[in-house]
Amino acid sequence: MTTMAGFSPKHFLWEVKQRIAVIRLNRPQRKNPLTFQSYAELRDTFRALTYAEDVDVVVFASNGGNFCSGGDVHEIIGPLVGMEMKDLLAFTRMTGDLVKAMIHCGKPVISAVDGICVGAGAIIAMASDLRLAAPAAKTAFLFTRVGLAGCDMGACAMLPRIIGQGRAAELLYTGRSMSADEGAAWGFYNALHPAEALEAAAMALAARIAAGPTFAHGITKTQLAQEWNMGLDQAIEAEAQAQAICMQTRDFERAYRAFVAKEQPVFGGD
Amino acid sequence: MTTMAGFSPKHFLWEVKQRIAVIRLNRPQRKNPLTFQSYAELRDTFRALTYAEDVDVVVFASNGGNFCSGGDVHEIIGPLVGMEMKDLLAFTRMTGDLVKAMIHCGKPVISAVDGICVGAGAIIAMASDLRLAAPAAKTAFLFTRVGLAGCDMGACAMLPRIIGQGRAAELLYTGRSMSADEGAAWGFYNALHPAEALEAAAMALAARIAAGPTFAHGITKTQLAQEWNMGLDQAIEAEAQAQAICMQTRDFERAYRAFVAKEQPVFGGD
Amino acid sequence: MTTMAGFSPKHFLWEVKQRIAVIRLNRPQRKNPLTFQSYAELRDTFRALTYAEDVDVVVFASNGGNFCSGGDVHEIIGPLVGMEMKDLLAFTRMTGDLVKAMIHCGKPVISAVDGICVGAGAIIAMASDLRLAAPAAKTAFLFTRVGLAGCDMGACAMLPRIIGQGRAAELLYTGRSMSADEGAAWGFYNALHPAEALEAAAMALAARIAAGPTFAHGITKTQLAQEWNMGLDQAIEAEAQAQAICMQTRDFERAYRAFVAKEQPVFGGD
Repeated sequence: MTTMAGFSPKHFLWEVKQRIAVIRLNRPQRKNPLTFQSYAELRDTFRALTYAEDVDVVVFASNGGNFCSGGDVHEIIGPLVGMEMKDLLAFTRMTGDLVKAMIHCGKPVISAVDGICVGAGAIIAMASDLRLAAPAAKTAFLFTRVGLAGCDMGACAMLPRIIGQGRAAELLYTGRSMSADEGAAWGFYNALHPAEALEAAAMALAARIAAGPTFAHGITKTQLAQEWNMGLDQAIEAEAQAQAICMQTRDFERAYRAFVAKEQPVFGGD
Repeated sequence: MTTMAGFSPKHFLWEVKQRIAVIRLNRPQRKNPLTFQSYAELRDTFRALTYAEDVDVVVFASNGGNFCSGGDVHEIIGPLVGMEMKDLLAFTRMTGDLVKAMIHCGKPVISAVDGICVGAGAIIAMASDLRLAAPAAKTAFLFTRVGLAGCDMGACAMLPRIIGQGRAAELLYTGRSMSADEGAAWGFYNALHPAEALEAAAMALAARIAAGPTFAHGITKTQLAQEWNMGLDQAIEAEAQAQAICMQTRDFERAYRAFVAKEQPVFGGD
Repeated sequence: MTTMAGFSPKHFLWEVKQRIAVIRLNRPQRKNPLTFQSYAELRDTFRALTYAEDVDVVVFASNGGNFCSGGDVHEIIGPLVGMEMKDLLAFTRMTGDLVKAMIHCGKPVISAVDGICVGAGAIIAMASDLRLAAPAAKTAFLFTRVGLAGCDMGACAMLPRIIGQGRAAELLYTGRSMSADEGAAWGFYNALHPAEALEAAAMALAARIAAGPTFAHGITKTQLAQEWNMGLDQAIEAEAQAQAICMQTRDFERAYRAFVAKEQPVFGGD
């Protein structure tokens, strides 16, 4: 069995509670910026999670009242200025690989966003399956404010499908902050919770999902990405195949037996 | 002329009023579950509607205060448990074929949702072109609660385009019920009406659409599906061709003549 | 250097203020209908803007309290009735070419919509990157009311991605007017402003965007269209390449230097 037991990352905090992995960046005094090292370690962690049999859901939590302030100006942006194309592309591919790893990790990812959530931080929230926020959350795709384009780590593809093309364009062209209320009204945030209750709400949502049929959840996650640009007929055939696979799991039988016995099903993830 | 005259399905109720076909499931005491037989007959009906020249719009109505409780636990889920893959895939393809048939039937489909609308019932609503609901409507993509994945009958492709990727993910991972108010705020339901006025509202909307250029409506329906995963330039060229076809219809000329005469156009569907 | 200096269109009003081009139709007494000539000239203008180095943002403004009443019934619809297919397709392709030219012009386009915004006028608003409206704005994709299909100039592809598939279907099948409040709630309009403040708000938004990294904005615009039907992994790789290009611009360095110096960056568009 492949497990995350003993996993001890160097560049962020990690714990597993009842099959829910909790990740949080750990430079709260600077609102949790990313560095080359934390980017790479996060990418490798989500890649490892693909095979981990002891984790069902991932919560990406805040720390010290903030989620993530994006790429560190001194440790990332400074070195990028003047770098050669080969190295620039290696960097942008690494950041994109983090999003790809999140999409392909096979476990639902829930972001719990308090305070600052900008740049690559906003991307991490966007690339999560579900997003909760505190009322003070400020979410900004502020690439334009550092002289770059809005197309960072998949934003021009993913953000329009979450909040609509027009709202996404506004955030990407202006770099302005989206308030928590806007995020909830637009469907970026699934719900808002007071800051002090935010992480507990994320853990409760994670527990609820983890108590479900986790193999099937992995298939749901696969199909949400896999059908992104399929034709409608092709997507429907793909789902016929994918759901037929799930109908051969024990969890499907467990749910049926529980229903007949008028009990709550206890799923096993197989 | 191909017509639905004399059509008398065995597994659901059917009537045609002024070129509007009304379908309703007919096991109200059990909140209208689907069976293998009603699935197949619905699929065949929507396939026949493609060629029917005496029906312009379809209303999928509720019955006894509920829309549809999904696949019958005893008549569908029980037999599926333990079935071999070949037969499972035949089943999931049949259910997917119902959605494909709805998409390709060439007539706008309006769901009028009261009460329970879950599982395959929620899919039927989702696969409709327009959706009205009563305030008590409870809509749940609850596949996860029977041990299955959210990717059923096209849900991972279609639901995100109706309500956005984040809200769709929440409904598909948790299986939770979407309230009528949420459905209206998120764009799943086009409007809410009191239960006692719901079907009349659906019929009025159907009549309004049926009074329009029905050949052109069929082209609109085709293009909404056809352009699902085209590039933007390709979609624009596809619409140039499709609209040029419509400009050779008599309905286009009828509208122009009526405008010049300061009258309301009377469309003929040709 | 390719510029728009001295450009003087015949069929609409044009001015450039501080690198912001303002276009407005100029038949206010008839609510600004389009003609064959203004369609073609608009198409050619947006094509020319692709190469213009003296314009950063385009504002498509209203005139006399209205935005655009669509194709002129007497000058466009009349001649189309009875036209042969070759000529019909030449017309629908020309109108589609206007949308393609707007999408590919490389500059953000902001529509400022007051009053009537219907038919091809609604399409011009839809094909813009950002949209502001006055409370009295009435936006209708009313093709169905002139006997045509909703698939005009890309509407079946673009409108669902802006306001969701269900709401788009309703507007396209019924041709009904979307109020300004609906447009704002659904994400069609980015914001509403009183009629007397609308154009100033559009100009302020344009100025804010023009003060940003305009080369990077052009890349954002390219990617928003380019990734329309890419797979997720492909979109992420496309953004890695596109953003690496932007990291070699002087604007990226300017932003970094300004940050270190605790100043506001002054971008140069290169």
